[in-house]
Amino acid sequence: MDDKNAEFELRPVGVIHSPYRNTSQAPYQGRRRKDISQIEIFKEFEEGLQDIEGFSHIIVIYWFHKSEEFHLLVKTPWDDKPHGVFATRSPHRPCPLGLTVADLLGREKNILKVQGLDAVDGTPVLDIKPYIPSIDESWPAKIGWLEGKLGKDG
Amino acid sequence: MDDKNAEFELRPVGVIHSPYRNTSQAPYQGRRRKDISQIEIFKEFEEGLQDIEGFSHIIVIYWFHKSEEFHLLVKTPWDDKPHGVFATRSPHRPCPLGLTVADLLGREKNILKVQGLDAVDGTPVLDIKPYIPSIDESWPAKIGWLEGKLGKDG
Repeated sequence: MDDKNAEFELRPVGVIHSPYRNTSQAPYQGRRRKDISQIEIFKEFEEGLQDIEGFSHIIVIYWFHKSEEFHLLVKTPWDDKPHGVFATRSPHRPCPLGLTVADLLGREKNILKVQGLDAVDGTPVLDIKPYIPSIDESWPAKIGWLEGKLGKDG
Repeated sequence: MDDKNAEFELRPVGVIHSPYRNTSQAPYQGRRRKDISQIEIFKEFEEGLQDIEGFSHIIVIYWFHKSEEFHLLVKTPWDDKPHGVFATRSPHRPCPLGLTVADLLGREKNILKVQGLDAVDGTPVLDIKPYIPSIDESWPAKIGWLEGKLGKDG
């Protein structure tokens, strides 16, 4: 099978319960917001959460289930120029995978309480990873076309 | 359709060419390694790379294609205790998605030259996102069971 024609199938491991009922309510980036969301990991995967509560931050990978198509060039709220989708965080991507580093406030069995997630209520969760600064942080970092555009809410 | 039974289908947008021919050659975390890999984005998606070269780091999401099963509790090289898979970076995950923040050294058309990627040669790439410190970094961060175990090579 040619690499290009490979197909991969995923089943969600959980679902996000958030205060954002639809995409227009969801912030462009929830990172600096104080809203609380809950990540429900399905019972069959609960054991996989063991020791997660020791981490202050988690990487949440989810499915942009409201994204129905993708564009290779996209305009964002940050400027008027189109940019390649891989140089943006637009949800309209060839593989509609969303990624947020969220504050893990606590865990109650199969429920994670998090802050800083910008996903719409009902968003399917594909993976949770512990956030590890020594491998996930890069400093200093250049941010190209976004330089100076994000402001305090970036 | 019940959330739990949803299925999502992905097609790769590219493939990784790396010096690691198999999983035993790949480092546990490539982040601090100097080895160079190339990410070939398939020609049909090349336009989506526009302006990516302005970013010094990118988030690469890929498919752990050598991972054939998952375990909810896993042992890692870092200690003798089993931990929940979501509290580790093990490739044997329910959704076998890999994630690395890599240094973007340059771009030549549809080829990205990167450093710090720990993926095996031939790994399918699902998504590329620009790394943006103001949303992707969290400091200070607690790393639970990994505290003090990673050392300089973490």
